[in-house]
Amino acid sequence: MSLSPSLYLFPVQLSDVPLQNVLPAFNMEIISTVKYFIVENVRTARRFLKSCDKSINIDELTFFVLNQHTLATDIPAMLEPIKLGYSMGIISEAGCPAIADPGADVVAIAQSKGYNVVPLVGPSSILMSLMSSGFNGQSFAFNGYLPIEPSARNNKLKEMERRIRRERQSQIFIETPYRNNKLIEELCNTLPGDMLLCVASDITGESQSIVTKKISQWKKCEYNYNKIPTIFLLFS
Amino acid sequence: MSLSPSLYLFPVQLSDVPLQNVLPAFNMEIISTVKYFIVENVRTARRFLKSCDKSINIDELTFFVLNQHTLATDIPAMLEPIKLGYSMGIISEAGCPAIADPGADVVAIAQSKGYNVVPLVGPSSILMSLMSSGFNGQSFAFNGYLPIEPSARNNKLKEMERRIRRERQSQIFIETPYRNNKLIEELCNTLPGDMLLCVASDITGESQSIVTKKISQWKKCEYNYNKIPTIFLLFS
Repeated sequence: MSLSPSLYLFPVQLSDVPLQNVLPAFNMEIISTVKYFIVENVRTARRFLKSCDKSINIDELTFFVLNQHTLATDIPAMLEPIKLGYSMGIISEAGCPAIADPGADVVAIAQSKGYNVVPLVGPSSILMSLMSSGFNGQSFAFNGYLPIEPSARNNKLKEMERRIRRERQSQIFIETPYRNNKLIEELCNTLPGDMLLCVASDITGESQSIVTKKISQWKKCEYNYNKIPTIFLLFS
Repeated sequence: MSLSPSLYLFPVQLSDVPLQNVLPAFNMEIISTVKYFIVENVRTARRFLKSCDKSINIDELTFFVLNQHTLATDIPAMLEPIKLGYSMGIISEAGCPAIADPGADVVAIAQSKGYNVVPLVGPSSILMSLMSSGFNGQSFAFNGYLPIEPSARNNKLKEMERRIRRERQSQIFIETPYRNNKLIEELCNTLPGDMLLCVASDITGESQSIVTKKISQWKKCEYNYNKIPTIFLLFS
């Protein structure tokens, strides 16, 4: 890998487990050398850095906050340290940066300026659930959250069903955790009984459960995923 | 995590780097406890196991081979050890099992029998390239290989372009490595100049390069990705 200043993308654990369960030792080595970070929340980023390496002197570090309140026009200035020759890091709140968090905007700017972008390995609920679902891993789509408005939501489900049948494309999506049970009920009422639904919850955590069943089986079984981070996959 | 017998999914490094760069220490702990493995190639799986833990006694282990020659009817019997109470592992040839290899068929059977499936963390060129592309990580599709037949290939590119414009869905695909340069040339000749193409090659390796440019810029620059494992992403 290049020794020129880089924008490192640091994944963070998804659940309360020892870091060595889900992050390579290399990540901790690299993170100890970086002094400039772009983070969603300074408090949790500091805690993560301390858990990576107790000897890190947090007061020496500079944090730029990137969240939903950040103005797009303020982002380019966050990358000034790289221009000056210093490596920087993006620390996710959970999982992999720039996958389902605002980090992608910074990475896009770094790419447009020709900076070196270096991803590190870490847990991804999307990928780990897909691996474990038994569904097609050669063709799949991650759809984020389903639309909330009923007709848009129904159209989205129909479109996913079409892509499963016609393209053999596995479909992945998420829901606000307190609505998980309601979503499963809705899927049971909307989708054909032979469709396969995989429900993957608390990935990497103590209560991890990744279960694939037909819709007709989900209709008959008991479950409770209320408030547990969960990801949903469909295939047939 | 459950103590009942499990089917563990073990990722493997993508490039010739120390395992600690890309795999959590936990993976090595778990792999040392498993005696039954489903693998694509016994020779490379043995080598991987030895690199995980020199003290592993390979002769004590049982390997089941799962590759493109395996009959679908032979797969269920491979999972007999779990039925008898022993954990098993699927070892990928590179990257994450069941994402772009035959492992998904075994996982599907394990799920249908209600066995515990446990994914472990490791490098994924799909996810690491997406993180680093600057493209939309809230909605994306992995398409595997593009069709080879010219009109089907052209239709696929048009469809991906539509999904980028209408759904803001990042599009990811791969090519046989000796055709990488030809593919980029083709994309330059087919796609609009303002489309963004990210070319991510040798991910995690010594020569790793992940570069996003407009098609109009790719047309003018020099590149050579011949025979280097590379993944391609489009967005606008």
